[in-house]
Amino acid sequence: MPDANPAVPATAESVHDLGEHRLLDRIRARVPPAPPWVAVGIGDDAAVVEPVRGALDVVTTDAMVEGVHFDRRFGSMTAVGHKALAINLSDLAAMGAIPRVALLSLALPGDLAVHDVDRLLNGLLDLAASHRVALVGGNLTRSPGPLFVEVTLLGSIGRRKVMTRQGARPGDGLYVTGEVGGAAAGLGWLQRNANAGSGDAVPDGLAVCVDRLLRPSPRVRAGTRVGRNRIVHAAIDLSDGLADGVTQITQPSGLGAIVEADAVPVCDGARRWFAAEQRDPVEAALSGGEDYELLFAVPDRPPSAVRLLGRVIAPLRVTRIGTVTAEPALRLRRPSGDATLPRGFTHFL
Amino acid sequence: MPDANPAVPATAESVHDLGEHRLLDRIRARVPPAPPWVAVGIGDDAAVVEPVRGALDVVTTDAMVEGVHFDRRFGSMTAVGHKALAINLSDLAAMGAIPRVALLSLALPGDLAVHDVDRLLNGLLDLAASHRVALVGGNLTRSPGPLFVEVTLLGSIGRRKVMTRQGARPGDGLYVTGEVGGAAAGLGWLQRNANAGSGDAVPDGLAVCVDRLLRPSPRVRAGTRVGRNRIVHAAIDLSDGLADGVTQITQPSGLGAIVEADAVPVCDGARRWFAAEQRDPVEAALSGGEDYELLFAVPDRPPSAVRLLGRVIAPLRVTRIGTVTAEPALRLRRPSGDATLPRGFTHFL
Repeated sequence: MPDANPAVPATAESVHDLGEHRLLDRIRARVPPAPPWVAVGIGDDAAVVEPVRGALDVVTTDAMVEGVHFDRRFGSMTAVGHKALAINLSDLAAMGAIPRVALLSLALPGDLAVHDVDRLLNGLLDLAASHRVALVGGNLTRSPGPLFVEVTLLGSIGRRKVMTRQGARPGDGLYVTGEVGGAAAGLGWLQRNANAGSGDAVPDGLAVCVDRLLRPSPRVRAGTRVGRNRIVHAAIDLSDGLADGVTQITQPSGLGAIVEADAVPVCDGARRWFAAEQRDPVEAALSGGEDYELLFAVPDRPPSAVRLLGRVIAPLRVTRIGTVTAEPALRLRRPSGDATLPRGFTHFL
Repeated sequence: MPDANPAVPATAESVHDLGEHRLLDRIRARVPPAPPWVAVGIGDDAAVVEPVRGALDVVTTDAMVEGVHFDRRFGSMTAVGHKALAINLSDLAAMGAIPRVALLSLALPGDLAVHDVDRLLNGLLDLAASHRVALVGGNLTRSPGPLFVEVTLLGSIGRRKVMTRQGARPGDGLYVTGEVGGAAAGLGWLQRNANAGSGDAVPDGLAVCVDRLLRPSPRVRAGTRVGRNRIVHAAIDLSDGLADGVTQITQPSGLGAIVEADAVPVCDGARRWFAAEQRDPVEAALSGGEDYELLFAVPDRPPSAVRLLGRVIAPLRVTRIGTVTAEPALRLRRPSGDATLPRGFTHFL
């Protein structure tokens, strides 16, 4: 697997050997100089940041837990660091917010190799740099169990540009960015492969899916542009899958939805993988999680709203997959008839 | 022990039984209505908060990991919730910041009883209410290992009122709030007691120490008042103990310190406990952690600064324990001569 961890010599220094203060110094030395609007950065009791004048603060936190969200056999520590920030960037993107500063909190098994922490940091800092996010603090502690990686992200948004999960109205079109199902197919392939103990290379169409799972691309540009143009009634990111997104954007507001099965943009590799597994590709994509695309509820009138949506998101594609309904049921529509929408994905159970 | 967990019936519902969505609903129902400056509170992809006009944002995150920071045999889940917020309040207090909103991220073992989550939330929400902090979001996930409680706290501070760890100057007095050593003595008693398997009530003088360990009182009022009055050159909270605080406030700036052993305000219960354990009470208090007092470096001239410090902190006491030196050594001074300052406390190794 191109993404696998290079072999670690048995003598590799562990975080226990290094100790907290030296590990902290090592991390601090890797963090690039903070931008001028960071008054106090990494290394104090808290970080101090100048807010964007006239804007609102947006804050979110999300964790990656070893054995729940990642498996060190499946991907590199670089990918873990990337994804820990990416899932938070996706949350801010769903609000339309521009990310600014991150905190990284690690609970580390004592025998974890120091260079695994370095790799995790590589992944996180590379993605942070590409989104101009400054790492300004966090926390280091020991874990007597799995590796915990928590990232907190603080961003800003103009007062009238906030998108929320509420606000969808009957008749709104449901639009999803990019393609779905890739992460679920990638996970399926990795689990099958790990269980078989095989070291096979990832087949061509599935490499994209595995990459989608391990290194998701949060839709920051799409989210901020859609928010700025005030095009949509509601937005959510698809961390827990498309079916869950449709549910969250409608049910709490007493609404329902019809999703057109034929319209769901399942990516090619996933479609082939699920078909080979004798699973319905659309149902698998709906109930699979971790695609980190965005779902919007968009008014049909004026029709210019939908055109504008396509324009501000391009070259990323956006697909109408269904309609918000006043009736609270959640349905999956096929030429052969309606069925209940599958349930979303959960890391929890 | 007054603080112990009430017996849980074997049939208690677990978080696994309840599931993520219903647990989230249960938490949401417990959170009081958000203040008007919270534009989007708990339940969306991120929280949206109006910053204080003209002020800076201050943000920190800190974790409590089962088996590292707490032991469910020693204290109630209410205390865990209290402390998870308290340690973050203490970080903001050390900067002089006023806390405003919190995020709570939980990684829960599947067999954890739902009412244990309720208790954790009780402790956190009670302390939040007393500091007018709004819980506006967070994250829920499963843990395949220990219970993991991460709190992120966002506050605000006036532009010229920020206190940092840097800024101490040779000749500055080192002042500590309240008393130290209590948490370390409390931990010592609990460990001794748990190991003996005994259910003895906490002896009189030690009850205060145990309470200090399990339910620390962050010095929010002291920190914000000292920051507002711009009295000190540097400040830090004593999460990792007084010796570590003295080190952090001097060494990175190329400075040292002399700590007067006789001046260290070790609390009575701790003094008796350490003496009975045949440990030097001052050394034990210096190297013990988790007192969550504040340490300040205060200019001696004008002398009014020190008087003002005492006045704004009252009725909490503040004690001069030593002096910042240009020479980088860290010394503990006794009538019998100088020794090296003991090392601080660390959760990490």
